[in-house]
Amino acid sequence: MKVKSSFGPNYNEFEIGEIVFLAQEKALKLSSGIEIKNFPLAYQTYGSLNADQSNAILICHALTGDQYVASTNPVTKKAGWWNAMVGPNKPIETNKFFVICSNIIGGCMGSFGPKTINSETGEPYGLSFPMITIQDMVQAQNLLLEHLQIKKLHAVIGGSTGGMQALSWSVLYPQKIKSVLLLATSYRHSPQNIAFHEAGRQAIMADPNWCGGKYLLEKKYPSKGLAVARMIAHITYLSKNSLQDKFGRNLQNKNTDAKNAFSLNFDPEFQVESYLHHQGMSFVERFDANSYLYTTKAVNYFDLESDFNGKLSNAFIEFAKNKNGRFCLISFSDDWLFEPSDTKKITHALIACGINTSNIIMESHHGHDSFLIENEALNSTVSAFLNQA
Amino acid sequence: MKVKSSFGPNYNEFEIGEIVFLAQEKALKLSSGIEIKNFPLAYQTYGSLNADQSNAILICHALTGDQYVASTNPVTKKAGWWNAMVGPNKPIETNKFFVICSNIIGGCMGSFGPKTINSETGEPYGLSFPMITIQDMVQAQNLLLEHLQIKKLHAVIGGSTGGMQALSWSVLYPQKIKSVLLLATSYRHSPQNIAFHEAGRQAIMADPNWCGGKYLLEKKYPSKGLAVARMIAHITYLSKNSLQDKFGRNLQNKNTDAKNAFSLNFDPEFQVESYLHHQGMSFVERFDANSYLYTTKAVNYFDLESDFNGKLSNAFIEFAKNKNGRFCLISFSDDWLFEPSDTKKITHALIACGINTSNIIMESHHGHDSFLIENEALNSTVSAFLNQA
Repeated sequence: MKVKSSFGPNYNEFEIGEIVFLAQEKALKLSSGIEIKNFPLAYQTYGSLNADQSNAILICHALTGDQYVASTNPVTKKAGWWNAMVGPNKPIETNKFFVICSNIIGGCMGSFGPKTINSETGEPYGLSFPMITIQDMVQAQNLLLEHLQIKKLHAVIGGSTGGMQALSWSVLYPQKIKSVLLLATSYRHSPQNIAFHEAGRQAIMADPNWCGGKYLLEKKYPSKGLAVARMIAHITYLSKNSLQDKFGRNLQNKNTDAKNAFSLNFDPEFQVESYLHHQGMSFVERFDANSYLYTTKAVNYFDLESDFNGKLSNAFIEFAKNKNGRFCLISFSDDWLFEPSDTKKITHALIACGINTSNIIMESHHGHDSFLIENEALNSTVSAFLNQA
Repeated sequence: MKVKSSFGPNYNEFEIGEIVFLAQEKALKLSSGIEIKNFPLAYQTYGSLNADQSNAILICHALTGDQYVASTNPVTKKAGWWNAMVGPNKPIETNKFFVICSNIIGGCMGSFGPKTINSETGEPYGLSFPMITIQDMVQAQNLLLEHLQIKKLHAVIGGSTGGMQALSWSVLYPQKIKSVLLLATSYRHSPQNIAFHEAGRQAIMADPNWCGGKYLLEKKYPSKGLAVARMIAHITYLSKNSLQDKFGRNLQNKNTDAKNAFSLNFDPEFQVESYLHHQGMSFVERFDANSYLYTTKAVNYFDLESDFNGKLSNAFIEFAKNKNGRFCLISFSDDWLFEPSDTKKITHALIACGINTSNIIMESHHGHDSFLIENEALNSTVSAFLNQA
C-alpha cells in the first residue's frame, strides 16, 4: 500500500488548536483512579446560546471523529463530518440551537491525548498516557459545559461511540440533560467488536515504526499498520449488501470481461480493495496511531450492563426522575457492528424505568455508516425529536 | 503479540514430503496461460482402492488445510483436521472407501507453492510463483488421479475453499465424478470476503520481514503480519453469537468483578483477544506467508457465475448428462462467511439442470467453522449421502 512513511505534512496542523479550553479549575479523576489536571479540551460551537441558556445541544463524536461537526476540518480541508445534519436550516438547526462539540480525551485534534506533550518530560505522553474510558470522556465534556456555564442541555446526541458517550451522560449527569438522541450505538461492545479492534491494534503495534509508542520522538510513523487497522474497521462500517451494491466484484480497470482483466499480481484490482486502500491511506494523514489504540480500548471497555451488575434498567433510575426526560434511539437495519437488537435492549431498559422513549429502526443500505449519510427520514426524525415541546 | 521472529524450528519439517507425486508426464496450463511441469503434489491416502476402482473419494481441503485429513500432521503433531469425519467406522468410512487428499498447488505442505525451490535459480519461487486459481488446483488434482489410475470418483468432497474445488470438479471433469458433497461454500467470493483477505494480505506485506516476498532467502519471517492476517480471518470463521457464547466479555484472568480487573494496558485481557493471539501465533508456525497471499488471491478470483456469463446453471450442463450424478449441499445457519443463501443459489442452478440435489441448512452455533466440528446430524448426513446406492 502506498502510505506515507512519515506522519506527513499535515502533522503540524494537528497543533492548530482552534478553540481550546484548559481544564484548570478541577482535577478529573479517571475511571482508573488516576487524576488529571490542566489538560486541554478542543471544541467548536455553532449558533448562539440564548438568554435562558435553554438551547444548548452537545454532540458527541464517534471513534475517529472530531469537533469539526459542521465546519471545515483544518487537517483534511473537508467539510464537517455531519455537515448535512448540523447548521442553519438543517435538522440540528443552528439558528435555533447552540451546538457544542468537543474532541474526546484520548483523541488527537487538540484535546488531551497520547500526542499531547507532557510538561514534566517535554515529550509526548505516548504509552504513558493514562487508559481512559467512555465515562472519562463524558466527565471531561462536563467540565467544558461548566466552563461555558451551561447548566442544562436541551439534548445530548451521539452516534456509534458518540452514542455510548450520550448514553453515559444520561447515567452520570441525569439532571443536566433533557433529552438524549442515540444513533447506531450499543450499551456494550460485543466480543466480535473487541476482536476486530484487537486485530487493528495488533496491526499498529506490529509496525516497527510504532517504536513501542514513541514514534513521534523517533520521527517515524506506523503508517502501514495504522492503514491496515483502518481497513479492518472500515469493513465493519459497511454491510455485506452495501459492499455488494457499491462495488460488487467490479475491477478497478473497469474492463467488463472480468476474467481476462485480472492483474494476476498483488496490487489492488477489485474496486473494494482500492476503496479500502484509500480509506487506509487517508486515515493515516489525519489520525494519531496511539490515539487509535487508546480510543478503541475505551470502547472495548464499555459495558453499561455490567456496570449495573447485569441489570441495564438500573442505569436509568436517576434519569427517570428527570421530569419530561426523553430518549430517541435510532438504529439501522443492516448495521452489523451495532445491531438494532442492541438498541432494542436499551429501549426496554428505558421503558422499564418509565422514560418517554422512541425506538426507530430505519431500513438502511449503508450499514453502520448509515447515521452519517444524508437521509430524509433520518433528518425529519432528528428534527422532530429536537423541536418537540 | 509474542510471535516467533523467524520461521521457527518447524520449518525444515515442511520439507518432509511424506508422499509426493511429481507431475512429469503432462504440462499443466494454468488459468493465467502459464504452463508448469515437473511439479510436486503431496498427498495422503486412507483405506484401499477396490478391484473395480469404484470406491475412491477425493477430499479437497480448505484455504489453509493440508493433506493430513485423518492422520497426524507432521508439522503440528496434531490429529488430522477432519479426524472425526474420516477413518475406520467414521462417516467417511475408510474400511469401505479409498480416500485421497492432496495439498493444493500454492500451498506449503509439499505441493508446488511459493516456497518450492525453483530449479533454474536454486531459490524459492517467492513472488515469481505464478498466480493460481481454484480451477488450477483442480487440474493438478486431476493429474494425481490419472497417476493413481482412478477413472471415476465415487465422490468429491470439500468444505469452504475445498467446496469451491469440489464445485469446479463438477464443471471441469463432470464425467469423472459420480457425486459431489459441498459444505459451507459458495459459487463466488463476495466483496466482503475479498475485503477481509485484502486486509490480511496488506498486514503481511506491511511487515518489513516479508522482504518483498524474499524472506526465506533473507532468513527472516513476517510472523507479526501473518499473525494479524490470521486474526482477521479467524473472526470471520466464527459467528457473532458463537463469540458471545464462547467468550462473552470474559476476561483472561477470570476475575469475576470485570470492572476492576481491567489490565489498563495493551496486553490481551479479554478471552476473545487471547484466543485470537493463540490462533495467530500457532498459524505462523505452520503456514507460509507467501502461500497465504497466493491462496487467498485464488479464492478472491473464484466466481463460477461470471465464468458462465452470469448464468450459474450453465456451469452444470455437462454434469447433468452424468447418469445418477448427485449433489449434496450443506450450509450452516450462522455461517456469515458463506451464507446458506449462497448454497441455495447453487442448488437452484443444479435443480434447473435436473440434477439430483439435496440442500441441507443445519442449525449451527460455530459459524463457518461448523463443518469442521463434530456433529451427529452432519455425520449422519454425510454417511447417508456416500452410502446411497
